[in-house]
Amino acid sequence: MKLVHDPIHGYIELDEFAIKLVDTPEFQRLRRITQLGFAFLAYPSARHTRFEHSLGTFHLAGEIRRHNPEIEEEAVYAALLHDIGHYPFSHTLEGLFPRHEENTVWLIKHGEIREAIEENYSVSKLIKFLKHPVVSGDIDSDRMDYLVRDAYYTGAAYGVIDLERLVRNLIFREGMLVVGEKGIMAAQNLLLARAMMYPTVYFHHTAKIAEAMLRKAVELEGISLEEIRLMDEVDLTSRLRNSERPEVRELVRAIDNRKLYKRVFCSNSELSPETVEHIRRALEDEFAHLALVDYPPKPKYEERNAFVLVGGELNRLSEVSPLVKSLVELKNVYWRWCVYARKDVKENVEHALKKLL
Amino acid sequence: MKLVHDPIHGYIELDEFAIKLVDTPEFQRLRRITQLGFAFLAYPSARHTRFEHSLGTFHLAGEIRRHNPEIEEEAVYAALLHDIGHYPFSHTLEGLFPRHEENTVWLIKHGEIREAIEENYSVSKLIKFLKHPVVSGDIDSDRMDYLVRDAYYTGAAYGVIDLERLVRNLIFREGMLVVGEKGIMAAQNLLLARAMMYPTVYFHHTAKIAEAMLRKAVELEGISLEEIRLMDEVDLTSRLRNSERPEVRELVRAIDNRKLYKRVFCSNSELSPETVEHIRRALEDEFAHLALVDYPPKPKYEERNAFVLVGGELNRLSEVSPLVKSLVELKNVYWRWCVYARKDVKENVEHALKKLL
Amino acid sequence: MKLVHDPIHGYIELDEFAIKLVDTPEFQRLRRITQLGFAFLAYPSARHTRFEHSLGTFHLAGEIRRHNPEIEEEAVYAALLHDIGHYPFSHTLEGLFPRHEENTVWLIKHGEIREAIEENYSVSKLIKFLKHPVVSGDIDSDRMDYLVRDAYYTGAAYGVIDLERLVRNLIFREGMLVVGEKGIMAAQNLLLARAMMYPTVYFHHTAKIAEAMLRKAVELEGISLEEIRLMDEVDLTSRLRNSERPEVRELVRAIDNRKLYKRVFCSNSELSPETVEHIRRALEDEFAHLALVDYPPKPKYEERNAFVLVGGELNRLSEVSPLVKSLVELKNVYWRWCVYARKDVKENVEHALKKLL
Amino acid sequence: MKLVHDPIHGYIELDEFAIKLVDTPEFQRLRRITQLGFAFLAYPSARHTRFEHSLGTFHLAGEIRRHNPEIEEEAVYAALLHDIGHYPFSHTLEGLFPRHEENTVWLIKHGEIREAIEENYSVSKLIKFLKHPVVSGDIDSDRMDYLVRDAYYTGAAYGVIDLERLVRNLIFREGMLVVGEKGIMAAQNLLLARAMMYPTVYFHHTAKIAEAMLRKAVELEGISLEEIRLMDEVDLTSRLRNSERPEVRELVRAIDNRKLYKRVFCSNSELSPETVEHIRRALEDEFAHLALVDYPPKPKYEERNAFVLVGGELNRLSEVSPLVKSLVELKNVYWRWCVYARKDVKENVEHALKKLL
Repeated sequence: MKLVHDPIHGYIELDEFAIKLVDTPEFQRLRRITQLGFAFLAYPSARHTRFEHSLGTFHLAGEIRRHNPEIEEEAVYAALLHDIGHYPFSHTLEGLFPRHEENTVWLIKHGEIREAIEENYSVSKLIKFLKHPVVSGDIDSDRMDYLVRDAYYTGAAYGVIDLERLVRNLIFREGMLVVGEKGIMAAQNLLLARAMMYPTVYFHHTAKIAEAMLRKAVELEGISLEEIRLMDEVDLTSRLRNSERPEVRELVRAIDNRKLYKRVFCSNSELSPETVEHIRRALEDEFAHLALVDYPPKPKYEERNAFVLVGGELNRLSEVSPLVKSLVELKNVYWRWCVYARKDVKENVEHALKKLL
Repeated sequence: MKLVHDPIHGYIELDEFAIKLVDTPEFQRLRRITQLGFAFLAYPSARHTRFEHSLGTFHLAGEIRRHNPEIEEEAVYAALLHDIGHYPFSHTLEGLFPRHEENTVWLIKHGEIREAIEENYSVSKLIKFLKHPVVSGDIDSDRMDYLVRDAYYTGAAYGVIDLERLVRNLIFREGMLVVGEKGIMAAQNLLLARAMMYPTVYFHHTAKIAEAMLRKAVELEGISLEEIRLMDEVDLTSRLRNSERPEVRELVRAIDNRKLYKRVFCSNSELSPETVEHIRRALEDEFAHLALVDYPPKPKYEERNAFVLVGGELNRLSEVSPLVKSLVELKNVYWRWCVYARKDVKENVEHALKKLL
Repeated sequence: MKLVHDPIHGYIELDEFAIKLVDTPEFQRLRRITQLGFAFLAYPSARHTRFEHSLGTFHLAGEIRRHNPEIEEEAVYAALLHDIGHYPFSHTLEGLFPRHEENTVWLIKHGEIREAIEENYSVSKLIKFLKHPVVSGDIDSDRMDYLVRDAYYTGAAYGVIDLERLVRNLIFREGMLVVGEKGIMAAQNLLLARAMMYPTVYFHHTAKIAEAMLRKAVELEGISLEEIRLMDEVDLTSRLRNSERPEVRELVRAIDNRKLYKRVFCSNSELSPETVEHIRRALEDEFAHLALVDYPPKPKYEERNAFVLVGGELNRLSEVSPLVKSLVELKNVYWRWCVYARKDVKENVEHALKKLL
Repeated sequence: MKLVHDPIHGYIELDEFAIKLVDTPEFQRLRRITQLGFAFLAYPSARHTRFEHSLGTFHLAGEIRRHNPEIEEEAVYAALLHDIGHYPFSHTLEGLFPRHEENTVWLIKHGEIREAIEENYSVSKLIKFLKHPVVSGDIDSDRMDYLVRDAYYTGAAYGVIDLERLVRNLIFREGMLVVGEKGIMAAQNLLLARAMMYPTVYFHHTAKIAEAMLRKAVELEGISLEEIRLMDEVDLTSRLRNSERPEVRELVRAIDNRKLYKRVFCSNSELSPETVEHIRRALEDEFAHLALVDYPPKPKYEERNAFVLVGGELNRLSEVSPLVKSLVELKNVYWRWCVYARKDVKENVEHALKKLL
């Protein structure tokens, strides 16, 4: 048994099997994948990584299981491994490659970690547990850890959650992780905290611009899925810095020196995929990598799937809590797509865009 | 100048005039008025008093004025004094006596503090400033202090607010204290925090029962407004403990020993004042002080009066934030009236009540 | 099982027997005994009580036992009850009456709580456990709780301790609670924190003056041990406010209104008991209750009795840690005796004192 | 003016000139220099960088100046820039290259930042201010920031300091920054906190081993001072990963995967430089890069240079505080030199070392 010091949970206990999983190159690589991508350009102290978040998720999953011993132990190790597939700068590159969940499965199947897993479990079984509600639900150990952790490291005041109350009131029942009556307020608070972290941290426009710039650089560099799977942020950044293409080097240097593109335009009206593609191409034809269209997927506030037990009966949390219900509306308030451009061509891009829209 | 150590704000600076106001019997009495009445029966550590809350409110009012120098300094001293009229156990006795704001005015006019005030201001002028938006609005120094402070002392996870961001983004304009664009999220968070503190702390049923018991004891003892005005919790408690009426002594001893009455019935349907009075009398006739009807006033979530500046224009916060809008609905979710009874007569009261309803 | 919310430990679990002990008048009385006496006159927010401290001590004792199952469960309940004998304003009156530990034993033997205890244990057995190292050593659950708690409520920066590391590294061995190698730094930190809390909080001169004034009032009022045993702060304060002796009423009113006596003289030279008595009488003859001699017992920093396990061998912590060793010297740095006097006679007392010394 | 969000200080205000300094490649590079080198191998969450520490130091220097307006403003900007010369992984490489202070001066003279500085000051003048007591004393803004920050990010309980009290009680006098009487306890606490952070965090053996491994890799790779001056951690790590020398690649891969060398031997007896060199060479001859001698410089606890004002007179803090005095002894308690070796040759190295000693 080993104790890891953590500012959020105090001490995290790792048993022997967990230590074996952590001591693999795939898991150690998470030390070099920042949790919040480029959020550090807006919140300089947000330098925490997927490594400590994964340990924290494991810890909370274990706590939930302590109160619900019928949960299989595989779910707790799945919580430990749920994020090993993240690409450099976390969600930044998910527009160019399969979602990180798919890469997690790929790495479990093909990485050195496979061998470590097989000492105790079949790989295919563990993969199934990645979808277990303890790690992959609306109120789960993953969210509980990242909200509190992201708030701690950014200094944002919105992620304070009564973790202990929530853990004590999560009930595993009929394959679901539902919230007991005494945990409703804490669960509501978790979903509210998440809703407030989106506009202030996760969708912060400075980070968004840097992410769009990096995506463009990776695209221009022509990095393949096979290459990116195991890269850490050192590999990717140095690859781009040393690119043969000057525009790639320019983009990454601009990010490094925080000479970011400027917002030309933002809107929260949805467009058809064709229109987005049309705008993207038209701007690219004229401005090449100097103008970027950032049309992010709409966030899934799947709050409707959180269930609570009231008087022995299952209810949707959104039916019990008017605040949670109103979170659904927020989706349309905070989502938006934008066009960014290098400072010197900003006005030209603006002009061209007006014609297009 | 004097520095007072405070866990919430670090150090609070008191200037000479503030020191004079604090050094009066009326203000020192606040050291013996607990901020949250009987909440300590549910949250044992909630023993903080109106004294430190008043200092904290003064501090925040001063900070707001530092960013808005056109606010008159009287408003800051009014913030210091805004709560001196609280009766023992804060809001508990407001059903029996005029609201504490009226007693604040009375004490300022008739207490020793009058003399201290008059060294700098006219008493009538200072009284007017008690309604200044810095201390008496929807987003004001009073609320900002008590939410953070109550969360700190109860240990509830719901009162964390980005005070600094809010203070920096409150703008005094046309006699209103409005929220600047960069403070919207923090203001929304304040109102949400308040909404969550209501059911978990401020309306906690254990405190509610003790409050109803104390009100009955004070009523039976026949304490007059003249008597209560200046009483602190020592005066009131010892008066009741030493009452000539055995039922008064019994009530206060039951509170002291936490042998509280039990809930017989709760409902969130509204009743006409006549019906309430009818039930109250019928139960009293049969059970005397052993059955209590607690029909609290509906809480005023006056979130509709919080204004924000968006693009130079004033908007209601509830129009900008769907979450704040939905807070209005909560009013009806958490409010309720109840009947309590001593354990041994609980069933009889239940029976009698059924006939009445 | 019942959960109590606590800002220090999160949630404290009370089992059925603990609930029975808590639900006695003797234990509920602790809600009205402030933890730090008159420290609130210097740290306004220090209003916490022996009640929550007792729950916290119980919690930590339970945690230590969880890591050392050979500790008898009686020790944990003794931790819960260890402070029930405290007089109003905690240590303030210990100069006039037997130490609170003696009153704890008396109350256990003669209070209603005796009956609750006897449902599970013999009273004499439980009394023996009050001296168990889990609650009554140099590094014990009592100190661990009060240091962290007092720091939290005063806002002092000196009481931060790695409680979890300490709890995990306390080893019960040969009837002693010793510190394992990995807990040495945390144990050292606890003793340092304590040493810094003494001059800043526990010996704060403002509190010391008020304490001396209260002791004089109680002495003049002639309150007997039989009376004080069960009094809470309401009883004592109202008794003094309503005294027939005007000087008693004057003293308590002065404390209430924070019109405290002034320091005339302080020294850290020791005097013989006879000299102290001589000065006390001489000043009393001339100034009655207007001059007070405060000659406190020297604090026992019994750090020499804390043992640590290094490489399997027991060592005194003071031998392993040069910092702890130097704590012994501090005793003589911070201790001092003083003479206080009412403002208007301060100079006369100073004059008289000069002649005496 | 720009506000930067920081978990330690809330919001940090950057004026226009500070923004210009921050917006240079030299300063932005600090975002990719971790504050604590390889401490993250022991404290996974210690991923903070010199960037946010530099902003925090600037903030505190500004606060100290606010209370001491006679301090020249250059000192505050010097505080901002004091760490720009740090090499990758902070102090790790200082054994191979000149101390980072020298590189700071070099970068100020030769970097792009020179131009930004010269808009307001002469470069030579600003360089002189790098030695100003506000940023380079025993109690200074640098230490105040890093202790609190390192404690926050590691989760260690030893860095809690009453920053506000300290800032309010630092007095600039005769070219020194001395501690006022009311700040003595806080200053003592700062030095104690530092003394406790050394063994637990700064000298943590896991980090020490990784540092020794990196130094060896950099030495073998033959990186020159000219190369290292401007490198960030991406540059250095990718350079080593792509080295032509297999032993360099092996060393950096071992660090990446946390397959660290093991301790063969540690001692706190001092050796002569010749003996160290002799051992180093002998082991190198036999084991090449597989055995490493880590003989760190003795830490300078220059607590003797901290001065306090007591009754208007300057005293050394170590004379006023017995605890601070005893800190000097600690130097010899925690310092030690070690020999590390790759696991498979550990015993051979042990054997060889025995012969040498």
